[in-house]
Amino acid sequence: MQAVELIRKKRDGETLSREEIAWFVTEYTRGNIPDYQASAWLMAIFWRGMNAPETTDLTMAMVQSGEQLRVRDIISPVIDKHSSGGVGDKVTLALAPIVAACGVAVGKMTGRGLGHTGGTVDKLESVSGFRAALSPEEFKRILITHNIVLASQSGDLAPADGKLYALRDVTGTIESIPLIAASIMSKKLAIGASHLLLDVKVGCGAFMKTLADARALAQTMVDIGKLSGLHAVAAITAMEQPLGRAIGNALEMAEAIAVLRGAGPEDITALCYHEAGELLLMTGAADSQSDAEQRVEQAVQSGAALAKLAEVIAEQGGDARQIEHPDLLPIAPARVMITAPRDGYIAAIQAEQIGIASMRLGAGRFKKGDQIDHRTGFILQAKIGDYCHAADPLVEIHARNEGEAQAIRASLLACYTWNDAPVSAGPLIYDTIRP
Amino acid sequence: MQAVELIRKKRDGETLSREEIAWFVTEYTRGNIPDYQASAWLMAIFWRGMNAPETTDLTMAMVQSGEQLRVRDIISPVIDKHSSGGVGDKVTLALAPIVAACGVAVGKMTGRGLGHTGGTVDKLESVSGFRAALSPEEFKRILITHNIVLASQSGDLAPADGKLYALRDVTGTIESIPLIAASIMSKKLAIGASHLLLDVKVGCGAFMKTLADARALAQTMVDIGKLSGLHAVAAITAMEQPLGRAIGNALEMAEAIAVLRGAGPEDITALCYHEAGELLLMTGAADSQSDAEQRVEQAVQSGAALAKLAEVIAEQGGDARQIEHPDLLPIAPARVMITAPRDGYIAAIQAEQIGIASMRLGAGRFKKGDQIDHRTGFILQAKIGDYCHAADPLVEIHARNEGEAQAIRASLLACYTWNDAPVSAGPLIYDTIRP
Repeated sequence: MQAVELIRKKRDGETLSREEIAWFVTEYTRGNIPDYQASAWLMAIFWRGMNAPETTDLTMAMVQSGEQLRVRDIISPVIDKHSSGGVGDKVTLALAPIVAACGVAVGKMTGRGLGHTGGTVDKLESVSGFRAALSPEEFKRILITHNIVLASQSGDLAPADGKLYALRDVTGTIESIPLIAASIMSKKLAIGASHLLLDVKVGCGAFMKTLADARALAQTMVDIGKLSGLHAVAAITAMEQPLGRAIGNALEMAEAIAVLRGAGPEDITALCYHEAGELLLMTGAADSQSDAEQRVEQAVQSGAALAKLAEVIAEQGGDARQIEHPDLLPIAPARVMITAPRDGYIAAIQAEQIGIASMRLGAGRFKKGDQIDHRTGFILQAKIGDYCHAADPLVEIHARNEGEAQAIRASLLACYTWNDAPVSAGPLIYDTIRP
Repeated sequence: MQAVELIRKKRDGETLSREEIAWFVTEYTRGNIPDYQASAWLMAIFWRGMNAPETTDLTMAMVQSGEQLRVRDIISPVIDKHSSGGVGDKVTLALAPIVAACGVAVGKMTGRGLGHTGGTVDKLESVSGFRAALSPEEFKRILITHNIVLASQSGDLAPADGKLYALRDVTGTIESIPLIAASIMSKKLAIGASHLLLDVKVGCGAFMKTLADARALAQTMVDIGKLSGLHAVAAITAMEQPLGRAIGNALEMAEAIAVLRGAGPEDITALCYHEAGELLLMTGAADSQSDAEQRVEQAVQSGAALAKLAEVIAEQGGDARQIEHPDLLPIAPARVMITAPRDGYIAAIQAEQIGIASMRLGAGRFKKGDQIDHRTGFILQAKIGDYCHAADPLVEIHARNEGEAQAIRASLLACYTWNDAPVSAGPLIYDTIRP
């Protein structure tokens, strides 16, 4: 096989065989195909697309480029969950202990935040002492012992994806649905859960800006699951405004704890319950929608879900007292309340811009490897559809100092759109795609 | 500016500005943009195309990457000619001295053959002692003194094109009309003639396989000429069967001499006269088609054109006696006549396959830098439309030895298609595109 032939083949809109895709990915990962041929191939894929078998073959080639955890060989069912990323998305922090408390194992590897979206590992690390970097052996032991484990993504899983992603980033080939789907699914398949809940975000704060794109991505990932033996379900959910009220690592941790106490904001609670319920149904732990809802409700009301979170945090070196008493989580030294500039209904809150403002406070990363401050962020006092009088509290800034808080005041206010007439927020959950 | 932004812009079908194209080409040539970004950019151009101003801007950026000869600052008008390449195409060898003998200067730089198509420099070098590698000073001096110069392409002209072409070759981005047009025109503009005749070949022996593609390439190059101040005219001509009867370097040199003696095959003579006449009209050396035809006829009949060829060959170190007595040109030691396998009309002669067979005799290069044998090749005894009886002479092989001649016999015969009913060859000249 020759790389240039496979570039030409895809360029001309033909379908690549499993052998051709596997050969290209393997030889590229080994360094036998240069970056300049891989980038031309990626651009041809960007242009011509890939059908479901091709996308699955690409995914599996990336899976086979590295270690495979095969967690479902240890415990089954075992669930995994992935969000395509948003602002204020702390669903995993509450969902994982709820599902585990309902008796379904949760083996979760998760990433760090980059750009305007946060990462679950960063939020977990706001708990003192918490250790996310686990060896495969530790991961398996904790999963068996506690029915739940929350680790950072290992670089040994799907290394071909890492190498290809870095190349895509500098060659304008990120925004391709088959390439995005293969990238996400390769890491999930390398972990090897039996069931996967995908949360595909859509809206101004998400990578997918249109419902059509979100639907296509969701369908592509569910199809990859189907063709590779992983039961995957995708929820398509709104990311027009930040999810919940807290943005920032310790603040989001505290809000997730509130959800587990039955006292979280309405939207994040609803989404969390929906996705947890979907997982109980998928795995057969619940046999109907209402049974699933009852079990989730029960796990929260009984305190079992919160206890599960404290248990896994403690096992991984974290200070469990901070879970029981979230006021012990690190607190930013400067807190500044921004008030509404006018009377009116909130019509829009630009989630992506809010995320960028939080990065400027130190809560997120502009580039990989940046240090973050777990304490900083925002607490939204009102959301889309709420009515404010001028000078009512609008958003509380948690900053390292007063100056940094004041520096973002104007750009923060610019995230809000006001309306004189009542406004209603759109739906939270657009659709659920099942195999 | 950032390379990835320009990749994305073209990927999304937008138009690049002159500044953006110039920046990309300059920074790539300097080594500041890596190959992997350039190849993604080229694939995006392959996909989205370029409009006439963009293609011209790309061409000019490549021109400006190296030296510029500006021959029209020395003598004007001064003509240049380019063929997109074919089998048996020795038009330049006869056309250049005809035009020069008519009083119009010819400053020609020309390439070596690669793959199934021959190169004018290789054909000239079949004359003993001929030296094609000239310094810019020699080139100018010979042009001024003799009104004609025939040199090999300098690597100092449009080096960006050389670098980009090498990358395109291994990344599946050769067959793009704007990229092909910019590559050809950059070298022509770097030489800087005032008038250019482009011969765009179409057919099974040409790079352009369809009339639509040939027309698009011709129009694109004429447009680049218009936008960059070079008066270019493109003839679209047939390359279904080899041109003339000789294929191979010394054999083609001898056939070009026959044309200059008024004794060449009909097709090559007609094409040569047409293109020479077109150049006399373009430059104003003739004021009508019939005036142009008369002048060309006169240059040949008087012997002035042949004398001009001998003059420039001698000036460049070649043995002019071989021009006056072409039987002194090097002759292959083994000559084998292949005869017709059946009665019938010749319906097709696969030009590309004939070219490949001649490479196997040593007449052409499989890869850059291969040594060639100037003596080897073929003399076609019959062409499309001719009737042969079985065992009539069909094609004479000129080889280094009998074994090499016999080794290609079968593949040579496979180039011929036969018909019981009369067949007529298609048109020789499809169209002429003027600015």
